[in-house]
Amino acid sequence: MYPTTMKAAVLHAAHDLRVEDVPIPELGPEDALVRVRACGICASDVHYYVHGRIGKYVVEEPMIVGHELAGDVVAIGSGVRHLAIGTRVAVEPGVTCGRCAMCKSGRYNLCPDVVFYATPPVQGGMSEYARIRADFAHPIPDHVSYEQGALCEPISVGVHCSNLTGIRPGDTVVILGAGPIGLTAIVAARQHGAGQVIASDVYPHRLEVARQLGAIAVDVRTDDLAQVVMDRTGGRGADELFDTSGVRSVIEAAPDLMRKGGAIALVGLPADDSVTYHMLKVVDKELSIHGVFRYSNTYPAAVALVASGQYPVEAVISDRIPLDQAVMAFEKALNEKDRAIKVIVTL
Amino acid sequence: MYPTTMKAAVLHAAHDLRVEDVPIPELGPEDALVRVRACGICASDVHYYVHGRIGKYVVEEPMIVGHELAGDVVAIGSGVRHLAIGTRVAVEPGVTCGRCAMCKSGRYNLCPDVVFYATPPVQGGMSEYARIRADFAHPIPDHVSYEQGALCEPISVGVHCSNLTGIRPGDTVVILGAGPIGLTAIVAARQHGAGQVIASDVYPHRLEVARQLGAIAVDVRTDDLAQVVMDRTGGRGADELFDTSGVRSVIEAAPDLMRKGGAIALVGLPADDSVTYHMLKVVDKELSIHGVFRYSNTYPAAVALVASGQYPVEAVISDRIPLDQAVMAFEKALNEKDRAIKVIVTL
Amino acid sequence: MYPTTMKAAVLHAAHDLRVEDVPIPELGPEDALVRVRACGICASDVHYYVHGRIGKYVVEEPMIVGHELAGDVVAIGSGVRHLAIGTRVAVEPGVTCGRCAMCKSGRYNLCPDVVFYATPPVQGGMSEYARIRADFAHPIPDHVSYEQGALCEPISVGVHCSNLTGIRPGDTVVILGAGPIGLTAIVAARQHGAGQVIASDVYPHRLEVARQLGAIAVDVRTDDLAQVVMDRTGGRGADELFDTSGVRSVIEAAPDLMRKGGAIALVGLPADDSVTYHMLKVVDKELSIHGVFRYSNTYPAAVALVASGQYPVEAVISDRIPLDQAVMAFEKALNEKDRAIKVIVTL
Amino acid sequence: MYPTTMKAAVLHAAHDLRVEDVPIPELGPEDALVRVRACGICASDVHYYVHGRIGKYVVEEPMIVGHELAGDVVAIGSGVRHLAIGTRVAVEPGVTCGRCAMCKSGRYNLCPDVVFYATPPVQGGMSEYARIRADFAHPIPDHVSYEQGALCEPISVGVHCSNLTGIRPGDTVVILGAGPIGLTAIVAARQHGAGQVIASDVYPHRLEVARQLGAIAVDVRTDDLAQVVMDRTGGRGADELFDTSGVRSVIEAAPDLMRKGGAIALVGLPADDSVTYHMLKVVDKELSIHGVFRYSNTYPAAVALVASGQYPVEAVISDRIPLDQAVMAFEKALNEKDRAIKVIVTL
Repeated sequence: MYPTTMKAAVLHAAHDLRVEDVPIPELGPEDALVRVRACGICASDVHYYVHGRIGKYVVEEPMIVGHELAGDVVAIGSGVRHLAIGTRVAVEPGVTCGRCAMCKSGRYNLCPDVVFYATPPVQGGMSEYARIRADFAHPIPDHVSYEQGALCEPISVGVHCSNLTGIRPGDTVVILGAGPIGLTAIVAARQHGAGQVIASDVYPHRLEVARQLGAIAVDVRTDDLAQVVMDRTGGRGADELFDTSGVRSVIEAAPDLMRKGGAIALVGLPADDSVTYHMLKVVDKELSIHGVFRYSNTYPAAVALVASGQYPVEAVISDRIPLDQAVMAFEKALNEKDRAIKVIVTL
Repeated sequence: MYPTTMKAAVLHAAHDLRVEDVPIPELGPEDALVRVRACGICASDVHYYVHGRIGKYVVEEPMIVGHELAGDVVAIGSGVRHLAIGTRVAVEPGVTCGRCAMCKSGRYNLCPDVVFYATPPVQGGMSEYARIRADFAHPIPDHVSYEQGALCEPISVGVHCSNLTGIRPGDTVVILGAGPIGLTAIVAARQHGAGQVIASDVYPHRLEVARQLGAIAVDVRTDDLAQVVMDRTGGRGADELFDTSGVRSVIEAAPDLMRKGGAIALVGLPADDSVTYHMLKVVDKELSIHGVFRYSNTYPAAVALVASGQYPVEAVISDRIPLDQAVMAFEKALNEKDRAIKVIVTL
Repeated sequence: MYPTTMKAAVLHAAHDLRVEDVPIPELGPEDALVRVRACGICASDVHYYVHGRIGKYVVEEPMIVGHELAGDVVAIGSGVRHLAIGTRVAVEPGVTCGRCAMCKSGRYNLCPDVVFYATPPVQGGMSEYARIRADFAHPIPDHVSYEQGALCEPISVGVHCSNLTGIRPGDTVVILGAGPIGLTAIVAARQHGAGQVIASDVYPHRLEVARQLGAIAVDVRTDDLAQVVMDRTGGRGADELFDTSGVRSVIEAAPDLMRKGGAIALVGLPADDSVTYHMLKVVDKELSIHGVFRYSNTYPAAVALVASGQYPVEAVISDRIPLDQAVMAFEKALNEKDRAIKVIVTL
Repeated sequence: MYPTTMKAAVLHAAHDLRVEDVPIPELGPEDALVRVRACGICASDVHYYVHGRIGKYVVEEPMIVGHELAGDVVAIGSGVRHLAIGTRVAVEPGVTCGRCAMCKSGRYNLCPDVVFYATPPVQGGMSEYARIRADFAHPIPDHVSYEQGALCEPISVGVHCSNLTGIRPGDTVVILGAGPIGLTAIVAARQHGAGQVIASDVYPHRLEVARQLGAIAVDVRTDDLAQVVMDRTGGRGADELFDTSGVRSVIEAAPDLMRKGGAIALVGLPADDSVTYHMLKVVDKELSIHGVFRYSNTYPAAVALVASGQYPVEAVISDRIPLDQAVMAFEKALNEKDRAIKVIVTL
C-alpha cells in the first residue's frame, strides 16, 4: 500500500520551486504508479525554473518538474497485463495516442496529442510517486541502478540521433557539445558501432568525461576541430554529426566537417532560432540534415546500453541530491556549469 | 563505319558558341560511341554560355556543351560485352570510378573522381558523336523517342529526389519551381506513387504544362501556396517537398508547408548560396533536409517512366532546333523564359 | 438517427449462413458506427463458410462474416475528434492496441492483441452497420465508390507486399496467382512504380482481368513462365515476386525466376503448410523471402490508388449481390471459380 | 624490391597440397602487391583440399588456396593513387567489376563478374605475395595484428548478416553454430549493438570461446535452445537469427525461436541443399529470411571492430602454423574439429 499524498518538487513560477505535499495521482485502467527513486534535472527543467516558460509553454498553474526518472512499480490499473507490481522501471516520459498516423507509422514522438511530463499543463515526475501509462514503464534488470534508469532518458536522445542519421559500425561520429545530451550521445553512438567519436566543448571537466566515455575530446578554445576530424578520417570527414551545442556558429560550420553523403542531426536550438547554411556545401556533399524531436522506440536500446556494463555512463552524474534539497539541486544545475553536468535528485 | 570528324556545339568563351568540326573521340576498351540524335539544353549549359564558368569550373579550353542525350550505339570498345552496336540508348552523362567507397556503397553520384560531360575540362555531348563508358549507355525500347531518351537526364533528378525523400504511394508532394527540373520531377513523383503533386511557379505557361503532367498548379503571384497545401492535406502539410526554384525566400518558407516528419530535397541553389532556417520549425516537425547532387541508379526508373507511356513528359519540350542553329537554341533558352521550357537540339 | 437492430450475414456453423436481425453494436468512446454499403467476400470468409473454422479459429458462436467494407459514418463515440458523421469511409478491419512494441514500431499488423473482423469470436462487418475504432475508418473522396472503398482491403495486401519487398520504380514484378489478391496486387505494384508486372494463373478469365489491369498475363498451362520472365528482363530475372497462389510447387520454383538480390513475398499458404527451398539458389542469389501477414499503414496508399482513377481495379468485381442473397453470393464465390473473382455484397 | 618467385600453398588435386615455388603475379595498373603475413584456412579451403571441387568449381589446374589474408603493400600499379607502399592491409578477396547494376547499387557481392580468390580458376592468397586490386586492400592501424587483419574476412560475413537482418541496438541475436563464422558473427552482432547474443553448438571448446566473446552459450546436446531463448526474451523470441550450422533440422526449427517480425540470415548450406519451412509460422510471424552470399562494404566495420580492442576475437584462433607446414595446417583443420577452430598460416 501507499499513502494518498507525496512530496514533490513543484514549480509555482520562475524561481519559485517548492518541495511540498501534493496528492498522489489517480490511476486510469492502463496506468502504473511508480515510486520514483531517481530523477534527473534536464536543461528544460532549468529553463522553466529560470523563465517560467519555454516558448509557448507557460507555467500558469503549479507544475511538478522532472521527466528523467526511474523507480519501482507500486500499483497498476485494472487493464494492465504486461507489467507487475514490484518491477523496477525506467519511465519514458511522453505518453502518445497510438491512434494517429505518426504513432501508427512508428514515429510516435511526432504524435500531436503527446502528453509529456513537465510540459505545462502536464505534471512531471520529480515526486515520490509518478503516474505513467504502463507501456511507457520499461523494466530494468536488477543490476541496473535507478540512476542508470533515469539516464535512459537523455541516452534516448543519442539513440534517436543515431537512428535518424543511420550510423553504421566503423563510422566516425562528431558530437558538438559535451553537456549531458552530448555526453550520453557518445555512448549511444558507440553502442551503434561508431568506430570513433569526436566530441567538442569548451569546458575541461566535460571533455574529461567525454574521454572517460571513449571519445576523442577536442577543446575548441585551443584546438582546431576541423583539423582533428580530417586527421582522424584521412581527410575524408565525418560520417555523422550531432549538434547538441545549440550554438549558431558551431552549427553553421558543421558541413565543413562532413564527408560526402554524411548526415547531421540537430538537437540543440540556437538562441535566435536561426541557422544559415551555405547551400553549395550541403548540395555538393549531398548532406542530409535531420531535426531531432525527442525520440521513439529508443528505450529498449537505452536500457540495453546501461545493462551491458560496457560504458561508464554514470560518469555524467556530477551531483546526487535528495528531494528535500531540490532547490539547491536546481541552483547547482543553473550556476555551476564549470563543474556540474547531470544533477540527479534522489527520492 | 563512321567518319573521323563531326560537327559539335563548342563553347570557346562566354557568349562564344560555335558549331564546328572536331575530331570524333577515340574509344577506350570499355567505351561506346553514340551517334547522338537529341541533346537537351540544361540551365548549366546556359550558365556556361553566359558566364563562361560555374563557380570553380571555368571554360579555359574550347568545350563541347550538353549532357542530356540519346542516340544509337555505332561502335564499342574491345572489352564491351553487354552493349551491342545498333542499340538505341539514353546516355547517363557522369562516368564514375567504381572503386571508391561512395561508388561501392551505391552512391556513385558522390564519386570524387566522376567525369561529367560538359564540366570543364570534360567535353560534353552536343555533337554528332559522343563517347561514353558502355555501362552508362542505357538501352531504350523502340517506342521511346530519342527526345524522351534525352529527357531521362532531367527526369533522373526527380527520381533521385523521390528516392532521397522516400516518397510512399499516396503521399502529397510539393514541387517548388516548374522549370524543366520541376516539371520532370512531377512525373517522377507520380511514378513513385505520389497521391497528389502540387507544383508552384510564376510563369503561366509552365503552370499549364504542370497541369498537363498531372499536378495541381499554383501561381504564387495570385494564390497562397500554403493555403492550397493545407486545404489539400486536411491541414496536415506535405509529406515531401522538392525545391527546384533556387529562390532563397521560397526555400526558407518550405518548412511551413510540411507535415511532421516530412522530407525536403534541395535541388536549386540560391544566388547568394545562403538559406536561413528557423530551427524550431525544423526540430519541432523533425524535418529532414536533403541536399541533392545529380543522381545515381536512376536511369532504369527514368527509362521505365518514359517507356510506360503513362506520362506526357514531352510536354516540357518547347523547342526542337537542329544542331546548325545551336546558337539560336541557346538564345531561346536564355531569353524566352516566358515561353520556352526545354529546348532540344536535334542531330 | 439509426435503428437498434440490423440485418447481417451470420454464420452459425459450416454451410449455415443466415441473413438475420441482430442488435447494432454499441459504441465505445473511440468508436465509429458505419452504415455499410459494400462488403467483399474474401477467401477466408468462404473458408469459414465451408469448414466452420480456419486452423485454431473455430466458429463456436454465431459470427457475422466479412471484413472488406466501406460505407458512411452515422455515429461516433464521445472521444472521437478526427472523424465526422457523414464521412464516407473505407474500413480497415483489424483494431490494434497501440501500446505494444509491434504497434509502436510501426508494424501494427503484428500486434498480439489485434481484434480482426470475422475471426472468431470477433464479429465481422457484412451487416447494415458495423462498429470500428474511428482511427481505422479511412475517409474516401466523393468520386470513389463504396465498392472501390471495399477493395482497399485486398489492395492493402498488395501494397504491403510492395513495401516489404521494396519495389523501386522500373522494377519487374512477378505475381503468381491472379485471384482477387493477385489481381489487386498488380495495381499495387504498378502504383509503386513497377515497370512491368507479369501475372500467372490457369484461369483465362482471371488472366484477361490481369491484362486489363496492365499486367503481362501468362497462362502456365500453355506458356513457360520462366521463359517469359527471362525474355522480358534480358535474362536477368524478376526484381520482386509475390506468391498469392499458395501452390507448393509454384512457390518452390520461384527462386528460378529471380534476379540476384531479388525479394519474394509469400501471401498464399500451401495446403500442407510446407515449402522446400533449395538453399543454394537462395544463398547464391542472396534472395530475401518475406512472410506477409495482413498489412499496416497501407490504407492511405490504397485509397490514393482507387482515387487516382489510373487503374480500372473494379475489373476484379465479377458479382454484385444484395445482402438478402448473401448465401447465393457465397455459393457463387465458392462454386464459380471459372467465372467469379471478387463477389461484393451490397447493402 | 622483391623477388620474382615465391613460396605458395598450391592445391594440385584432392589431398595433394604442395608448398612450392611459383612466380609472383604481375601487377596491372590498378593492382597492389601484398607481402602476406597471415592467411586463415576457411572451410571452403578444406573442402577443396578434400574433394578437389565445390559444386561446379573444380580444381583443374594447380591453384593457390586461401582467401583470408593480411600483410604489407610492397608494390603498386601505375594507376594507384590511394594506397602507399608500406601500408599494412587486410585484403578483401573478391574483386568486382564496378560497372554492373549490382555493383552500382551497392551490392557488389552479387557482381556476376566477381573474381574471388581460391575459386577455380582464380588463384588464392596463401603465398608470400598476393595481388589484389588496390581498392580491396584495406589499411589497418599499427596496433592491429596481421592475424586480426586476416580475421576481417570471416568477421565480414557476420557484419553482412547483421546488415541484412537489420540488427538494432538492444536486440537479441541467436547464432546457430559456433565455428569460425558463428564465433566471429558473435562479435559482429555485438558491434551492431546486440543486447544479448545466444550461440549454440555441440562442441564444448567452441562454446567456451563463444562465452569468451560475450555470448550466452548453449550446448544443444544437453540444453533446450528454444527454452533458453524464450527465457532470455521474456517469452518473446529472438529479433534476429543467423544460421551458420548448415544443419537442415536446425535451420528448419529456427522460426520457432523468433519473435514476430524477426529476421533470419542463412549462411550455412545443408548437405542435401534442401530446407523445408512450415509456411504458417513464417507468415504468421511475418518473418524475413535472407540468403547470405559473402558480403559487401563490410571491411570498414570489420577493421574498426578489431581496431577497437573491445572484443577478444583472436580467441577463435586455435593454431598458428608456418607456411612450410601448410599440409599439416590443413590436416589439423580437417581432423581436429574437437579442438581446432580457426587455423592461421603465418608467412
